[in-house]
Amino acid sequence: MGKVVVDISMSLDGFIAGPNASPALPLGKGGERLHHWIVELESWRAMHGLEGGRAGRDAEIVEEAFRDVGAVVMGRRMFDEGVEPWGDNPPFHVPVFIVTHHAREKLVKEGGTSYTFVTEGVERAVAQAATAAAGHDVSVAGGASVIQQALNAGLLDEIQVHLIPVLLGAGRRLFDEDGGGPIELEIARVEASPGVIHTRFRMPGRRS
Amino acid sequence: MGKVVVDISMSLDGFIAGPNASPALPLGKGGERLHHWIVELESWRAMHGLEGGRAGRDAEIVEEAFRDVGAVVMGRRMFDEGVEPWGDNPPFHVPVFIVTHHAREKLVKEGGTSYTFVTEGVERAVAQAATAAAGHDVSVAGGASVIQQALNAGLLDEIQVHLIPVLLGAGRRLFDEDGGGPIELEIARVEASPGVIHTRFRMPGRRS
Repeated sequence: MGKVVVDISMSLDGFIAGPNASPALPLGKGGERLHHWIVELESWRAMHGLEGGRAGRDAEIVEEAFRDVGAVVMGRRMFDEGVEPWGDNPPFHVPVFIVTHHAREKLVKEGGTSYTFVTEGVERAVAQAATAAAGHDVSVAGGASVIQQALNAGLLDEIQVHLIPVLLGAGRRLFDEDGGGPIELEIARVEASPGVIHTRFRMPGRRS
Repeated sequence: MGKVVVDISMSLDGFIAGPNASPALPLGKGGERLHHWIVELESWRAMHGLEGGRAGRDAEIVEEAFRDVGAVVMGRRMFDEGVEPWGDNPPFHVPVFIVTHHAREKLVKEGGTSYTFVTEGVERAVAQAATAAAGHDVSVAGGASVIQQALNAGLLDEIQVHLIPVLLGAGRRLFDEDGGGPIELEIARVEASPGVIHTRFRMPGRRS
């Protein structure tokens, strides 16, 4: 069976989006700074149907993270804000499961992406995604709320945090105060580039 | 002139102490977890007048950080909670400047440590410490409030964060929401051990 993973860019002060996020500004004020490093990479651009970009170790790490993903789980707000820009041939190329309160019929897009709406919570969405992934990894893509729910439900095997050398000062935190007590992680890998520190952690107690 | 530096252990979710910190529990509930890696090191133990401990790269990094420090700045609460356990021969071995609202006479301890109380704010405390450091570094030791004040006043040259693979879930954050807008950093060094990721950032715009 594949792993359940998170792969996300976070500022040194813990934010994955800037303040005042809205459908018109999904990453919040200044939040696009967290993705500067990735949007210039060849591997990221290829997944988004774009040409060119930079090769090298950063691009390899991004490619590696996406290569093993067989299905994606995301929250309803992330879906609502993303569905238009992602267009008819979305960058996932695998089944996507959206945690929502509103039942809705499955949408099938080009290039392997489909959108399935799950009303029974994040645990059920991850289970459905795991079935669809057929041995590959399930990526919990965001937003922060769905990642926190998956973390607190003990569903995650690995967290890859791309640590960005900026202090945003405000915004949406990856890790909120959850009051749930400490969770021990294991450092699986650390690699630094000039503009980003790639860190990967295993969640012991889960298979890894 | 020396640099103004911060050197601190932080959980992956951004905490430098657990919740419910008090004079009897200065690191808060579970906060001592953040210091497990350091208290076992030879270099840290030697500074605290203790024998034994582990040598190696972690110990070198700790020794290196302390070797260049010519003076320390800290907040009043950190001082109040520390002064008794630190005892007659405190682990600093350099002049310490405490940011406080209450004027008080300087205390001179054994082994090179003195405590000077500064009532004119963090900027003045750092300036006095820089004079006392005589070309060596000034270490802003904590707590979080004094570090944040120094950061927001543009007083810091470098931040060394020892990232600990644990999610505390609650406590005292190193970086609060300050609403001050983004601050760009530069990655100066990254080294990973099994139990800690040593990251160091420069603050551009400051001399470095």
